[in-house]
Amino acid sequence: MQGAVLYGARDIRFEDRADPTIVEPTDAIISLPVTCICGSDLWPYRGVSPFPAGTPMGHEYCGYVEEVGRDVTSVKRGQFVIGSFFASDNTCPHCHHGFQSSCVHKTAVGGAQAPRLRVPLADGTLVATRDMPDVDHIPSMLALSDVMGTGWFAADAANVKPGSTVVVVGDGAVGLLGVLSAKQIGAERIIAMSRHEARQKLAREFGATDIVTERGDEGVERIKQLTNGVGADSVLECVGTQESMMQAIKSTRPGGSVGYVGVPHGVTLDGADLFFRHVRLLGGPAPVRRYLPQLIDLVFAGKINPGKVFDLVLPLDQVAEGYRAMDERRAIKTLLRPSGN
Amino acid sequence: MQGAVLYGARDIRFEDRADPTIVEPTDAIISLPVTCICGSDLWPYRGVSPFPAGTPMGHEYCGYVEEVGRDVTSVKRGQFVIGSFFASDNTCPHCHHGFQSSCVHKTAVGGAQAPRLRVPLADGTLVATRDMPDVDHIPSMLALSDVMGTGWFAADAANVKPGSTVVVVGDGAVGLLGVLSAKQIGAERIIAMSRHEARQKLAREFGATDIVTERGDEGVERIKQLTNGVGADSVLECVGTQESMMQAIKSTRPGGSVGYVGVPHGVTLDGADLFFRHVRLLGGPAPVRRYLPQLIDLVFAGKINPGKVFDLVLPLDQVAEGYRAMDERRAIKTLLRPSGN
Repeated sequence: MQGAVLYGARDIRFEDRADPTIVEPTDAIISLPVTCICGSDLWPYRGVSPFPAGTPMGHEYCGYVEEVGRDVTSVKRGQFVIGSFFASDNTCPHCHHGFQSSCVHKTAVGGAQAPRLRVPLADGTLVATRDMPDVDHIPSMLALSDVMGTGWFAADAANVKPGSTVVVVGDGAVGLLGVLSAKQIGAERIIAMSRHEARQKLAREFGATDIVTERGDEGVERIKQLTNGVGADSVLECVGTQESMMQAIKSTRPGGSVGYVGVPHGVTLDGADLFFRHVRLLGGPAPVRRYLPQLIDLVFAGKINPGKVFDLVLPLDQVAEGYRAMDERRAIKTLLRPSGN
Repeated sequence: MQGAVLYGARDIRFEDRADPTIVEPTDAIISLPVTCICGSDLWPYRGVSPFPAGTPMGHEYCGYVEEVGRDVTSVKRGQFVIGSFFASDNTCPHCHHGFQSSCVHKTAVGGAQAPRLRVPLADGTLVATRDMPDVDHIPSMLALSDVMGTGWFAADAANVKPGSTVVVVGDGAVGLLGVLSAKQIGAERIIAMSRHEARQKLAREFGATDIVTERGDEGVERIKQLTNGVGADSVLECVGTQESMMQAIKSTRPGGSVGYVGVPHGVTLDGADLFFRHVRLLGGPAPVRRYLPQLIDLVFAGKINPGKVFDLVLPLDQVAEGYRAMDERRAIKTLLRPSGN
């Protein structure tokens, strides 16, 4: 098969890769009707995060089970399944507490920008849908694998409740789906911070009631104005820089919560500053597995449509253009179609 | 009247001070049957935190209302009242959310190591008891004003629930009362970190099931051993140093919570480290006011006895010895009795 492999900064290639095979008896092989590029793929693509040259890319996936190892019991050939970027056993104490992305046996899933994928710990990782999704639902199912699950975790970690006032920092796919999550949970007011017209539009479509274009302390000042000087109950941090993190913390009212899902790059927090702000913090790699059954139901019921974040669709062999479009912010998120699947 | 005034590092004097008077119409003057020294008084006493020379000391108080300003309606002369170290209006949005120590009108209360005290914002700050407490209950009522309320907030912020596994970092009065709070809330296992025999004994009396004497990474290792490698659901950080904060964070399981109430001194947190640990953080000056009604009831009902942390009782004019005993860790907490009250 052919898939996307990263060799260096901005050097992504579509090339021959070995077909995946069952390695462990707990593995499954799935075929991917669609795949995609994640905002977090841009960290290595831009040379910000180190990686070994020749890394197969892609960690978001859904598709049809082709083959399972002999120990796999919960999914079977032909089913449509979705999993998370971290494989997890779903039985360890951390999984039982709903933090499957800290599973004691967690394994990063990689190489999903391809027609087929090996998924380790298939029983713990994969969730099969009750029915086959319509072709129109498949992009939304794919979004559940990471960006939607991550947006939902951000809202959950930020303690969004019905009636909450919410701020979302970051207008990438995760931030936009954080807006959608907050809306679905019942937030009354959702303030999206964005200075990009197409993203503002999608944020409004997903439920944002206000848009703030200012950033940093000016952005914080604007949030304070919009909330009668109080600050927000819940702030979703979906970027991962020092500026965005402080923007999130300072926009939160005392006793409010920040859910941070942007992977922190060079972020440092001052203990005393945090102490006197009375802000609750929870972040980390989203435990997408916890939310998958609920989110799958919401997609089938037509209550959420996270696939709308895909505003560029390309054949998989044009994956390099998909990265370029996201790198240059011409696309929010690129959907890729393997040929023949 | 005469009270305690701090002039420089380890230079605490018992000397004449002006009698407090009603300054604002929202003030109350209370007479103090007992007063005490806080662990946090040791920061300026040791010269670690800056302060103006000639600072009247003491911020923990309960006592009898002597006089109220013309706008005070909720307490009256003769009542027994308890308040927090931060006066608060109890009506602003932050107070409504239960974070009175971030009240928009908050004012630090000071000078309580004296026979009488002016309390600002009396209506919002003071809680009157329904009945007059017995003399035996008065030390426990005094403890509610700060250390017990702070220990309770630490447990609440750390999300302690019935059945939880809890670790308490710090064996000062707040840490010990964190143990008592966790026990009262229904924690199943409470691991106190202490290497001081008298404090270990009181921790056990308050409900600790295990004592860990190791510190730092060795202490974390011991917590992991005691929890089957999982870590604790809830950790109460009651010190405020970099070492104690990291000890708390590393002792927490993924998805667990740290409640930190030790005022951070030189504490810095790495965003990426915190992210991958999946640890929820909430700290700050305790909103004692929120908990006072409930804690007063628990003292009257004989369910908690936080006054046990006072292991040294001195007349107020020996306040300097009270500080020395705490500074040298000869005493957990010093109760002071003003003469004639």
